[in-house]
Amino acid sequence: MPDDFERMWADLAPVGRSAETGGYFRQPFLAAETELRAWLAEQAAARGLAVREDGFGNVVAWWGGVPGDDARGVLTGSHLDSVLDGGAYDGPLGVVSALAAVDGLRERGVAPARPLGIGVFAEEEGSRFGVACLGSRLATGALSWDDARGLRDRSGVPLGDVVAGGTSALLDGVGTFVELHVEQGRGLDQLDAPVGVASGIWSHGRWRYDFRGDADHAGTTRMEDRADPMLTYAMTALAANKQARIAGQRATFGRLEVAPNGTNAIPSRVSAWLDARGATDAALEELVAAVSRQAADRAGRDGTRVEVAAESVSGAVAFDPALAAALAEPRGWPVLATQAGHDAGVLQAAGIPTAMLFVRNPTGVSHSPAESALVSDCLAGVTALTDVLEDLLR
Amino acid sequence: MPDDFERMWADLAPVGRSAETGGYFRQPFLAAETELRAWLAEQAAARGLAVREDGFGNVVAWWGGVPGDDARGVLTGSHLDSVLDGGAYDGPLGVVSALAAVDGLRERGVAPARPLGIGVFAEEEGSRFGVACLGSRLATGALSWDDARGLRDRSGVPLGDVVAGGTSALLDGVGTFVELHVEQGRGLDQLDAPVGVASGIWSHGRWRYDFRGDADHAGTTRMEDRADPMLTYAMTALAANKQARIAGQRATFGRLEVAPNGTNAIPSRVSAWLDARGATDAALEELVAAVSRQAADRAGRDGTRVEVAAESVSGAVAFDPALAAALAEPRGWPVLATQAGHDAGVLQAAGIPTAMLFVRNPTGVSHSPAESALVSDCLAGVTALTDVLEDLLR
Repeated sequence: MPDDFERMWADLAPVGRSAETGGYFRQPFLAAETELRAWLAEQAAARGLAVREDGFGNVVAWWGGVPGDDARGVLTGSHLDSVLDGGAYDGPLGVVSALAAVDGLRERGVAPARPLGIGVFAEEEGSRFGVACLGSRLATGALSWDDARGLRDRSGVPLGDVVAGGTSALLDGVGTFVELHVEQGRGLDQLDAPVGVASGIWSHGRWRYDFRGDADHAGTTRMEDRADPMLTYAMTALAANKQARIAGQRATFGRLEVAPNGTNAIPSRVSAWLDARGATDAALEELVAAVSRQAADRAGRDGTRVEVAAESVSGAVAFDPALAAALAEPRGWPVLATQAGHDAGVLQAAGIPTAMLFVRNPTGVSHSPAESALVSDCLAGVTALTDVLEDLLR
Repeated sequence: MPDDFERMWADLAPVGRSAETGGYFRQPFLAAETELRAWLAEQAAARGLAVREDGFGNVVAWWGGVPGDDARGVLTGSHLDSVLDGGAYDGPLGVVSALAAVDGLRERGVAPARPLGIGVFAEEEGSRFGVACLGSRLATGALSWDDARGLRDRSGVPLGDVVAGGTSALLDGVGTFVELHVEQGRGLDQLDAPVGVASGIWSHGRWRYDFRGDADHAGTTRMEDRADPMLTYAMTALAANKQARIAGQRATFGRLEVAPNGTNAIPSRVSAWLDARGATDAALEELVAAVSRQAADRAGRDGTRVEVAAESVSGAVAFDPALAAALAEPRGWPVLATQAGHDAGVLQAAGIPTAMLFVRNPTGVSHSPAESALVSDCLAGVTALTDVLEDLLR
C-alpha cells in the first residue's frame, strides 16, 4: 500500500508543474487538469470501479456498486485542480489517498456492505471561473446552472462553452462524505499530531472591487488634478489588512487587473479581488462592510468611484459533530477548525453528513509552490482514511 | 491644405481603435502600427519623397534630396505609436501636420534650398519594450544596440527578433529638428493661445520596483505570520503620491504585474513601474530616492524584499534657446516647459538644435481615449509649422 501511494504520487508530480517556480498550474478543463482526469479514469479502470460523471465536470468512481434505494453510499475524495502556481498536495492528496485506501481495504479483505465512491469535484479553487467549489456547488444545487453558465474565465470563455451543464444526480444516495486534505496551517504541527479531524470551516468569500478614475498622462497631469484609482485601491488594501488584524479575521488582496496598465498613464480602472474570512457569518459581514466603507470614503477624497460585488460567499459550516467525534475520539485525533473552504463544506451545508481528515503540514504554507508534507504523514493519512472508511462501510 | 489635413486625419481614425473604450492600441511593430507605417509609405510615395529607414524601425521621408556634405537637412515629424488605450493626437498629429506642411510649402511655391525630412521614430511611448523614445535613443546612440537587443515585450519577444538592429545613419546631416505635438496639459488653454513653443522637458524616467514576499494561503495564514508584498507595494504607491505632491513633482504607479495573481493566494511578487518626473535632475533623483527609501523601510516591517531598477532615465533638456526665440518672438507665441518626454528631447540632448511646437489641448488630458484638440487649433498648428519650416529652409 505505501508503494501504491508513492507510485501514484510520482505519476502526478510532473503534471502542470512550472519549471520556473516549481508550482502547479492546474486550472480546470485546461491541458494539465485534463491529463489528471485521464489519469483518474485509468486508475478507476485498473481497479474495476464504475465511473459516473455529471455535466459540471464532477466525477465519482464507485466500488461495490452504485448507491440506490437499497444502499446509501459512502463518498471520499477531493479535487485535482490547483490555484495558479499552487502546491502539489492541496486536492490531489485526498484523491490519491482515496485510491490507496481502496487498495488497502482490499488487502484487508474488506467486502464493502455499501458502495464506496471516490469523488473528484471540478474547480474547487475557483482559479478559472472565479467561484470556489464551483463543481460541488453546482452538484448540490447551492448554485444554479442558470447563474453559473455565464461565468467567464480571464480569456472571456463562458463556463457554458466548457461543460454541458444541466442537473446532477451524482450525489444521489450519498449518505456520508469524508474528505482527506493537507492542513493549511500549523495546527497539527503545533499539537505534534500527523492526522486530525475538522470541526468546521470559517465563513468566507470573494468580493470584486472596481475602482474607477480618469486616465491621463502620468507626466503632465498635476498631482492635484488627478482622479487616480490606484491610490484608492492602495489605501483599501492597507485598510483591509489592518481591519482583519484588529478583528482577528483574514483579508487579502491577491489578484489585480489594471487598465490600461501602462507605465506612463494614470489608470482608468483598478479591479481588485478581496478574499475575506471570519469565524462567524456576522464577523465576516462586519469585516467586509468596514473595508468597503473605507474604500468609499477614500474614493470620495480621491475623486474616484468604487463598486463592490460579491462573487461567492460561503457561510460558516460546522461538520456533523457526531461523525467527527466518532472518528476522532477512539483514535485520540485532535479536532480543529479551518479558515479554508472545501467541497466538504458545501456537501455538509447541503445536508450530507460530512467529515474532514487533515494531514500535518510542517510549515503551514499552502497555495504556494512551497506547500509540503512528509511522506510518513501522508502514509499515516492513508491509514487513517482506510480505518475510517472500513468503519463506515460496515 | 485644410482638406489634406482632414482627409489624412480621417484615414488614421479607425486604425488600432478599441470599439470598447474608443482609445488606441498602436504598439510598435504590431498590426495597427504596421498599418500606419504602410500608410506613411503611401503618403511619401504620393508626394515623391525619398524614404530612408534604419535597422531600429525609424523612418525619414525626404523632400528636395537627402542631406549630404553640401546640404544640412531640416527634420520635422513625430511618432505613430500610442500608449495602451491612448488618444488620437499624441504622435500622429506631428506626422500628419508635417505632411500637410509639405503640401502647404508646395502651394506657396517654396523650392527648398535644403532637404526637408518627415521623420517617424519607433516606440516613442515605450508601450511594448518598456523604454520610452526607444527609436530616437538608438538612432542617436544614446542607447546602444547591445544594451537594447535583449529588451523583451510582455510576451517575452526580444527586440532583436523584431528589428534588424545595427547602427543608424538616418540622422546624419540633420541640422535642425522641429517636432509638432499636442500639448499634454492646459498651459496654452490657460494662455488662450492655439500654438506655443517648448522651452524644455523635465527630467523623467521609469523605475521597476520588484516587491517579493512569501506566497501562502489567503485564508489560513494568520495576518501576523504573513510576508505580503502587496502591502509593501500599496504603502509605496501612497508614499510616491505624497512625496510628489509635497515636492511639486510627479510620481505615478500605473502598471502592475502580480504573481501568481490568484484571489485566494498571498502574492509571491508584485512588480510595479514608477513613472517619475522632476523640474531638475536633482529634484527627480531626490524624489525617487525618497520613494525607494520608504519602500525599503516598509519592506523591513512587512518581512518582504524590494529591488529597484531604473529602466530609462532622461535628464532635463533645454531646447536650443536661440531657435525657440527665433520661432516664438516674431509671432508672439508663448514659450512653456513640459513634463512629457519626446523624441525632440533625445535629439536635442544628442546635439541637434531642436524646437517643439505645441498645439492647444482644451482639457489637458492625454494618454487617454479622452485626449482631444479642436480642428481649428490643429489647422493653426499646420500653418505654424509651415511658416517655421519655410524660414528654416531658406
